[in-house]
Amino acid sequence: MTLEAAARTWSHRHLLDVEGLGRDELEHVLDLAVEMREARRTRSHRSVLEAETVGLAFYEASTRTRVSFELAAVALGATVVDLAIAGSSVGKGESLVDTLRTLERTGVTTLVLRHGSSGAPHLAARTTGMRIVNAGDGTHAHPTQALLDALTLRDALGPLDGRRVTIVGDILHSRVARSNIHALRALGATVRVAGPSAWVAGFEAWPGVEVATTLEAALEGSDAVMTLRVQLERGAGGVAAYTEQWRLDDERMAMVLPGAPVLHPGPTNEGIELTAALANGPRSLIGRQVENGVPVRMAVLAQVTGAA
Amino acid sequence: MTLEAAARTWSHRHLLDVEGLGRDELEHVLDLAVEMREARRTRSHRSVLEAETVGLAFYEASTRTRVSFELAAVALGATVVDLAIAGSSVGKGESLVDTLRTLERTGVTTLVLRHGSSGAPHLAARTTGMRIVNAGDGTHAHPTQALLDALTLRDALGPLDGRRVTIVGDILHSRVARSNIHALRALGATVRVAGPSAWVAGFEAWPGVEVATTLEAALEGSDAVMTLRVQLERGAGGVAAYTEQWRLDDERMAMVLPGAPVLHPGPTNEGIELTAALANGPRSLIGRQVENGVPVRMAVLAQVTGAA
Amino acid sequence: MTLEAAARTWSHRHLLDVEGLGRDELEHVLDLAVEMREARRTRSHRSVLEAETVGLAFYEASTRTRVSFELAAVALGATVVDLAIAGSSVGKGESLVDTLRTLERTGVTTLVLRHGSSGAPHLAARTTGMRIVNAGDGTHAHPTQALLDALTLRDALGPLDGRRVTIVGDILHSRVARSNIHALRALGATVRVAGPSAWVAGFEAWPGVEVATTLEAALEGSDAVMTLRVQLERGAGGVAAYTEQWRLDDERMAMVLPGAPVLHPGPTNEGIELTAALANGPRSLIGRQVENGVPVRMAVLAQVTGAA
Repeated sequence: MTLEAAARTWSHRHLLDVEGLGRDELEHVLDLAVEMREARRTRSHRSVLEAETVGLAFYEASTRTRVSFELAAVALGATVVDLAIAGSSVGKGESLVDTLRTLERTGVTTLVLRHGSSGAPHLAARTTGMRIVNAGDGTHAHPTQALLDALTLRDALGPLDGRRVTIVGDILHSRVARSNIHALRALGATVRVAGPSAWVAGFEAWPGVEVATTLEAALEGSDAVMTLRVQLERGAGGVAAYTEQWRLDDERMAMVLPGAPVLHPGPTNEGIELTAALANGPRSLIGRQVENGVPVRMAVLAQVTGAA
Repeated sequence: MTLEAAARTWSHRHLLDVEGLGRDELEHVLDLAVEMREARRTRSHRSVLEAETVGLAFYEASTRTRVSFELAAVALGATVVDLAIAGSSVGKGESLVDTLRTLERTGVTTLVLRHGSSGAPHLAARTTGMRIVNAGDGTHAHPTQALLDALTLRDALGPLDGRRVTIVGDILHSRVARSNIHALRALGATVRVAGPSAWVAGFEAWPGVEVATTLEAALEGSDAVMTLRVQLERGAGGVAAYTEQWRLDDERMAMVLPGAPVLHPGPTNEGIELTAALANGPRSLIGRQVENGVPVRMAVLAQVTGAA
Repeated sequence: MTLEAAARTWSHRHLLDVEGLGRDELEHVLDLAVEMREARRTRSHRSVLEAETVGLAFYEASTRTRVSFELAAVALGATVVDLAIAGSSVGKGESLVDTLRTLERTGVTTLVLRHGSSGAPHLAARTTGMRIVNAGDGTHAHPTQALLDALTLRDALGPLDGRRVTIVGDILHSRVARSNIHALRALGATVRVAGPSAWVAGFEAWPGVEVATTLEAALEGSDAVMTLRVQLERGAGGVAAYTEQWRLDDERMAMVLPGAPVLHPGPTNEGIELTAALANGPRSLIGRQVENGVPVRMAVLAQVTGAA
């Protein structure tokens, strides 16, 4: 598919969520990301966004995501300005909406926004004329993470139609899990979630989502397993109990189909949610997930700006 | 006017203050800013500063001003380096002069400096060979803010000669007010200041400046009104009393000439120094002020470097 | 010597230490730095690193060193990404190795790393495929500082073969002193170290290194003197005693050969380890050291990437 065909299919001005994107739109942005992998290597697209000013507004610190968005924007020739919000005193005396309007009037055309409040990117899209890319909002959504996970799975497994992907951990509070469920479902996969009962409560009502109450039931017959970062601050007792029941290791992974891969959005707590041997072993796609971060974000920036 | 003519008129190597700049110099830098608005849009000046290295040294945090200087420098093709001082431990064991000399020897040719001490930019200009642009020093001066305010007023009102502009708030501690008084006076306007008596003390002695002791007297016959940010940390009691007497709203603005605009250097405390309805209504030039920030700073950078 | 000849001589993929570099390698990188001084001025090498992505990972804050690496990389056309680690919450939940692997997979090809732990750059070189440039690790090494010191001395004195350079201060805890000893020895100089006995303990066993127990003995017959920053937090009493015995001033410098220069890695505590008159007087090479920072780092980046 050409860039032009992708653009015709996916014409959104924002990327706020993956919820609501159809299979064709998702496949097209993944195809575009594949093209961007090559474009980055050959540096062939370095003027695609030369008329754009991309602002990075990370109200929550994230070296990993911020750096990959910055490198994606630079690779496409955009002017990039980092607002350096996290850790600074910025925003203390100013509402989010005022800050966003100021950025727009300063000349930022596309804003990459991470914020601790669910819905902040939607607010930004409603109250300014900037294109908004959600880089993670509260417990709501993390669409570019879901896209890079989907690309990583598609690279490894081929088309995801009819596949079963299991996600283990604190599903309820995870924007990564939530966006993955939407993306994987739209791409035709079945999603199974698993974890302590309080962390998977309510998901049995989601169409196409299965809830497993033991790790054994969760893994059996899965084509791929994704485990999430356990928030260590939830107390050591809780962590020990979690690890006892839910930590992924090579023995437990033997229940999954032969060769089924393991994913993790990073950064991992090795020894907690999965063993170091598994994280660094041949089943692990964790490194591939990171590698796909920049090309996926190049594709998203090209799409929302209409440059692709 | 051509860029060359502007450069001949305004040949200062620094922009430390607006005090001392004459009407021709001010008009010329505003004309140049108008040209820069177009130059930014068409990206026609992207190599004007390609031999310059612009350092951003913000000892006080300011996303708004820092980002607009950064975008201005990048739009003219300069190499930009952000010293990321505010919030860091930088400067703890090093005097300002030592830091400045180090920056000069590292290759910074033009320094944009914001500092909590009045006079810091003058010190920088005396002790190094860098071109210095004052981005706000203590309670002393904020010349680029005054220039963008003057441009915004000139855009709205035409020539400022014979106009009356009222500034409301804590005039005494405001570098914005101080620089605006100098710029507006030099451009031929009369300036009226108003606020609680302790905040306007002494200004009756300034030539061409009137002091008003009530908001009604302040607004009557004004062609434009600028209100300043109230420092909320001065105590809630003080804020309530201030708001009662000095908050701008549509009713009070009716005393001003029909259509007279309202300005605010931002960020606003809506409901304190002006109502949200006024700040976001048709009289408000607050958005235009922000929009003029980048072209004014492009003009200033071009002028001090002799590139214009 | 041409760039090509330099590259043939010095083919290391990393710069972790100066220990182990031979005289030819050191002379060649210094020659290359001389070439880079001119290249920077004429902006003739602005596409040398255009295929490189240089990451700046400063786990310890350092405006001076970070800015000079950033300007060096930009001057050679690299994409530069600052990880903005110091002062942020980054790395809290992630091991150094995980962060480094993430950076590599994100596309960073050359990493400039400053870290409080001695050996961190070696760990980085062993566990990732990135080229690593050590920007200071714990009390171990600061190779680019030693290179710029050597260049500054060679500019002033000519070839260093047979020269005697004295280093005064806390030699034991100084990565600057340690790297200078290796570089100066390899370039054929004799090194004399001096300071309170606890700060020079053990150096009498180093080949080619002399230990002096008084400042008089330290200075006599030296061709150049370098003094180090005293860590003020070691207690005012200690500082006063140090200053009494070891502070460099013009009178004490009269014992050195006529015209012998004084160096300091900066930032200085004027009045503590040397007088302000000496630091700012005609013997001082402190400004030249800073000026050599960018071209030396351009040379190092060009060397490790094989671009030179």
